[in-house]
Amino acid sequence: MGRIPSLDIEARRQACARLDSLTKPPGSLGRLEKLAADLAAMTGEPLPRVDPAAIIVLAADHGVAAEGVSAFPASVTAQMVANFARGGAAINVFAHQINARLEVVDVGVATPSDQVPGVVLDRVRAGSGNIACEDAMSSDEVKAALEVGIRAVERARAAGARCVILGEMGIANTTASSALLAAFTGLSAEEVVGRGTGIDDARLDHKRKVIARALARGTGDTALDTLARLGGLEIAAMAGACLGAAAGRTPVLVDGFIATVAALAATRLAPGVRDYLVFGHRSDEAGHGEALAALGGEPLLSLGLRLGEGSGAALAYPLLASACAMLSEMATFADAGVEGGPSA
Amino acid sequence: MGRIPSLDIEARRQACARLDSLTKPPGSLGRLEKLAADLAAMTGEPLPRVDPAAIIVLAADHGVAAEGVSAFPASVTAQMVANFARGGAAINVFAHQINARLEVVDVGVATPSDQVPGVVLDRVRAGSGNIACEDAMSSDEVKAALEVGIRAVERARAAGARCVILGEMGIANTTASSALLAAFTGLSAEEVVGRGTGIDDARLDHKRKVIARALARGTGDTALDTLARLGGLEIAAMAGACLGAAAGRTPVLVDGFIATVAALAATRLAPGVRDYLVFGHRSDEAGHGEALAALGGEPLLSLGLRLGEGSGAALAYPLLASACAMLSEMATFADAGVEGGPSA
Repeated sequence: MGRIPSLDIEARRQACARLDSLTKPPGSLGRLEKLAADLAAMTGEPLPRVDPAAIIVLAADHGVAAEGVSAFPASVTAQMVANFARGGAAINVFAHQINARLEVVDVGVATPSDQVPGVVLDRVRAGSGNIACEDAMSSDEVKAALEVGIRAVERARAAGARCVILGEMGIANTTASSALLAAFTGLSAEEVVGRGTGIDDARLDHKRKVIARALARGTGDTALDTLARLGGLEIAAMAGACLGAAAGRTPVLVDGFIATVAALAATRLAPGVRDYLVFGHRSDEAGHGEALAALGGEPLLSLGLRLGEGSGAALAYPLLASACAMLSEMATFADAGVEGGPSA
Repeated sequence: MGRIPSLDIEARRQACARLDSLTKPPGSLGRLEKLAADLAAMTGEPLPRVDPAAIIVLAADHGVAAEGVSAFPASVTAQMVANFARGGAAINVFAHQINARLEVVDVGVATPSDQVPGVVLDRVRAGSGNIACEDAMSSDEVKAALEVGIRAVERARAAGARCVILGEMGIANTTASSALLAAFTGLSAEEVVGRGTGIDDARLDHKRKVIARALARGTGDTALDTLARLGGLEIAAMAGACLGAAAGRTPVLVDGFIATVAALAATRLAPGVRDYLVFGHRSDEAGHGEALAALGGEPLLSLGLRLGEGSGAALAYPLLASACAMLSEMATFADAGVEGGPSA
């Protein structure tokens, strides 16, 4: 993976000049105009394209699931990986809607997915440690998981992808994400805990205590160390995917809470990553607002989703595609003979 | 046009039961789940479909443009109709993105669009009256304009459309829409006026006074009368399109301020229309929030658009398509052998 390039200011300037020449009142397409200009700056193309998109779903198990922090048993991670492989999950449907390549990567499901056709096996270890009482993984394992994400992005790009959507599956991964968020921001367990895919009040209180125990073990001196102590294999892999995409000027469409925490981890490893992030959806998970605030991110959608898998990002993707199409395909005032353009 | 049917409660019940059996935590797809259930109730299909969509752009001129209430000269209406016909406007690009049929209807542009290939001529009169000092049109002309919208929906449905997106073009039509909104809700000119496609403070103050003059002429005793006094030809046609779509159980995806006021007018003519409305985008136009509140509408998107043409609704359409696909294409817990479903 190379250095992360700076945004292309000249491509942005050309995109902005064209936006003001198109047959619409200046600025009247609101955030779509900013998005088009941002994508120009990321890709270095005055007329950027984001199609085709590639969705990468990174899956792993979490030792902390043993603490009973999730509404679902840990076995559901492997079952859902099989469901992705058979095409039955929400992200399969949304991938089809946007004509996106979908790749599922087993970074460390407890039971290897080697019997599941179509899943990429790139395993670092069989699930992370229980962060309530031990490190999630070693520093070398964090590095290996980052490389898993970088390799996944390289495969997506080799297949022609111009935009990467990162999703995840891992029972108990909101617990790890909340702990990471607290470590990166200094917030308390109270401030970062949420209901995940749907736990009740009693389990929420228990989850907060588990996160507090994890944080009490120490949050690490570097981002790599923090990921080792509190992270998850798929979270580190998503962070690696952000690094790899940014290094190659490929926009990353960030999903909900877990993906945003992974993106935050990536910016702590390499601040330049931030320039290549677009935020798809503001989730209902309590900590997501804090994670977004730490990144200065403003999602495109807010639909009350709390599923993960990359679903919120996949649903936001048509807005990126439409922003690019608008910039390149609309007529200018001069072309169309419409009064009121920049020269009027 | 027939009676507006009631929502199909049984289709909604079946859709909701299926939603809870799909391989996701119950409710975790948030508003997309509500949308899927609503579309089932509208269409009467437990597995509804909204594709293909049809976009109908209704265009007309407004006598009140002579008061200088817009940032653009009235001649831009005809120029933009020609731009739609040539495929150069934002709505053309967005229609292409969602594979939607796009029809542009001249309901009453000041200069007839008979030299513009591809525009449907269904003209009621050459622009509405200047509502600052005269009625926009007669009651018979309102009825004729409503019929224009009904016919447009019939053409769309005959072409296979399962969802109707209504757009508009008409310089000064935010002025007429603001006056209608005030008349329908009892709000003051101050509360309903906005910057349209982008006027400055001085012109905003002038626009408010023009709206106050229009309201002082009397707001009418019936919805039909109100449309005659303060409306616009394309606004009445959009209201007619809402009536026609609702009568045929076809969901209407409502765009921004002007479309929402037209939908409000339609509900004042026939309250049952409300059941068939989905709101695409919360616009920056000041009165839009009031119009939405009057209808109890909560748009899917909020991207700071203020263009019209149906652009906000077209951008929201993929969410409807994804909601339907999710409902019909996802695996159930039983199909996929995933734990944690309704029977777990």
